[in-house]
Amino acid sequence: MVDRDIDGLALPDPAAIRLARERIAPYVRVTPVLTSHSLDEAIGARLFLKCENLQQVGAFKARGACNAVFSLSEERAARGVVTHSSGNHGAAVAYAARCRGIEAHVVMPDNAPKIKVANVEGFGAKVHFCLPNVAAREKVCSEVERATGATLVHPFDDRQVIAGQGTATLELLEAVPDLDAVVAPVGGGGLLSGTSIAAHGVNSGIEVYGTEPAGADDASRGFASGRVEPMPNPQTIADGLRSTLSARTLGALRTHVRGIAICSEGAIVAAMRLVWERAKIVIEPSSAVPIAAMLEGTLDVRRKRVGVILTGGNVDLDKLPWQ
Amino acid sequence: MVDRDIDGLALPDPAAIRLARERIAPYVRVTPVLTSHSLDEAIGARLFLKCENLQQVGAFKARGACNAVFSLSEERAARGVVTHSSGNHGAAVAYAARCRGIEAHVVMPDNAPKIKVANVEGFGAKVHFCLPNVAAREKVCSEVERATGATLVHPFDDRQVIAGQGTATLELLEAVPDLDAVVAPVGGGGLLSGTSIAAHGVNSGIEVYGTEPAGADDASRGFASGRVEPMPNPQTIADGLRSTLSARTLGALRTHVRGIAICSEGAIVAAMRLVWERAKIVIEPSSAVPIAAMLEGTLDVRRKRVGVILTGGNVDLDKLPWQ
Repeated sequence: MVDRDIDGLALPDPAAIRLARERIAPYVRVTPVLTSHSLDEAIGARLFLKCENLQQVGAFKARGACNAVFSLSEERAARGVVTHSSGNHGAAVAYAARCRGIEAHVVMPDNAPKIKVANVEGFGAKVHFCLPNVAAREKVCSEVERATGATLVHPFDDRQVIAGQGTATLELLEAVPDLDAVVAPVGGGGLLSGTSIAAHGVNSGIEVYGTEPAGADDASRGFASGRVEPMPNPQTIADGLRSTLSARTLGALRTHVRGIAICSEGAIVAAMRLVWERAKIVIEPSSAVPIAAMLEGTLDVRRKRVGVILTGGNVDLDKLPWQ
Repeated sequence: MVDRDIDGLALPDPAAIRLARERIAPYVRVTPVLTSHSLDEAIGARLFLKCENLQQVGAFKARGACNAVFSLSEERAARGVVTHSSGNHGAAVAYAARCRGIEAHVVMPDNAPKIKVANVEGFGAKVHFCLPNVAAREKVCSEVERATGATLVHPFDDRQVIAGQGTATLELLEAVPDLDAVVAPVGGGGLLSGTSIAAHGVNSGIEVYGTEPAGADDASRGFASGRVEPMPNPQTIADGLRSTLSARTLGALRTHVRGIAICSEGAIVAAMRLVWERAKIVIEPSSAVPIAAMLEGTLDVRRKRVGVILTGGNVDLDKLPWQ
């Protein structure tokens, strides 16, 4: 797929994130920030949980998708939008397009769970199936672009998407201004890029950390090497974090992020369960990754005031990973 | 047990609930009010979920217990408090006593789940075991009162407890002033009494409804007959709603409540699952009862703006009722 940005490394600045916040305000929720004494005790820090699991479509992805869709000119918007995602981003683009009253095309692998297909279709999007591999996905996506003139809304390698994802951190820092650190999971890096740019736009002294599963640790390796480190076959329950950084998001991380910590699969499941049990909220495995890294001690934020972006809450309640 | 109120029918007035709110403010959370488009669609109303599952100890019970404990004179408080409960009220009294720095005694049946015993002990309370029947429970409770001079904090038949439970509705109506109706579950009736008095203190036009399981329908029957209707053997998964109204709470309900709807066990489980899946929060079966009654249609609030008190989120994550 062709990246539509003129400069494939361009990132939003803090002003773009503030503008995104105004732009998407009618379509996204100001999510609550929750605390839990027993989580704090388990970790030895004071945690402030930014609950994007309670966001529209059950994930922060609604923010970036809405900002991208509502940034389009009338003329481009009229031709619709297209994306590839079997997860939260697909639903988010479908939701954003419905909010704007335009057509959305979502390319999904033909083995995607029926409930995810139904969810995207429920927002009125047109689903295009492809074989479950990257080449097939990009081919179908390009075909839709050519046939319809729809604009691609990339899941993370897009300035407007990154700006939208950063708006959660603006809200978090308004609710809790005196944070020492902010932690988010990292997959393709859109959320972590937006989070870190937004945080440093408010206060350059805030420490921003990424966290990822050991079985999908391309961001840790890329952060260390300075190069995008392809990872063709990531292995993790945290299905939202299987993407690889782009040159753009790696650039943001190298500028703004203090470090990236990894965690084990067992810690992800334990952290997910702990949050359900103690904070009484439903989070998906990807959301649990920052807590998992703190529990394992690979991320040491003890005695600090720490904002945590809980990214989403879309799980199959019939298949819980601790059962 | 002796009711310590001079008048066993006395109820708090709206001013007492406002005072309770100030008194307990340092010890309880202002819980968020959440909305969910898909829940609204399923029910045909606009719901505003007051999330007491996100309250201290995971239940609204923290409000009433804190108000009762902090209402005591220094002299009485110094002798401690006692209650009988294997559920959320026991933990709430233990929590409130710890907040005030006084001793709490909690009488629990000797077959109570270990996790519930550990929870109460974790707040520093002393647990007294009894045989699992009402006579044994009251005997042990009286013995503790005589031996220690501790004050009984009844789970619902207590003016200060009722006033504390009403504070959730004050917050709800500040967050969403233009509600048509407020719905809560009813067990012993402490929450529903406080809810209805608080609501009518703000706006006498608000419709207040109770909801209860068909297998524990003493409140419906008492509401109709005007008498307390004993129910020795209630059968429901909603373990927080197995108590019988007292003369005091029945009096409040007969004055302030429009109606009480019942629901089936199947609807409770379906409603619980729907809230987890759509609103992304963990609620216990008792919390799901208002939604269950709306789904079954025994409570018709269609096209209205409806506040729902979600009472708690303490569940065993290894034994979910839909599995």
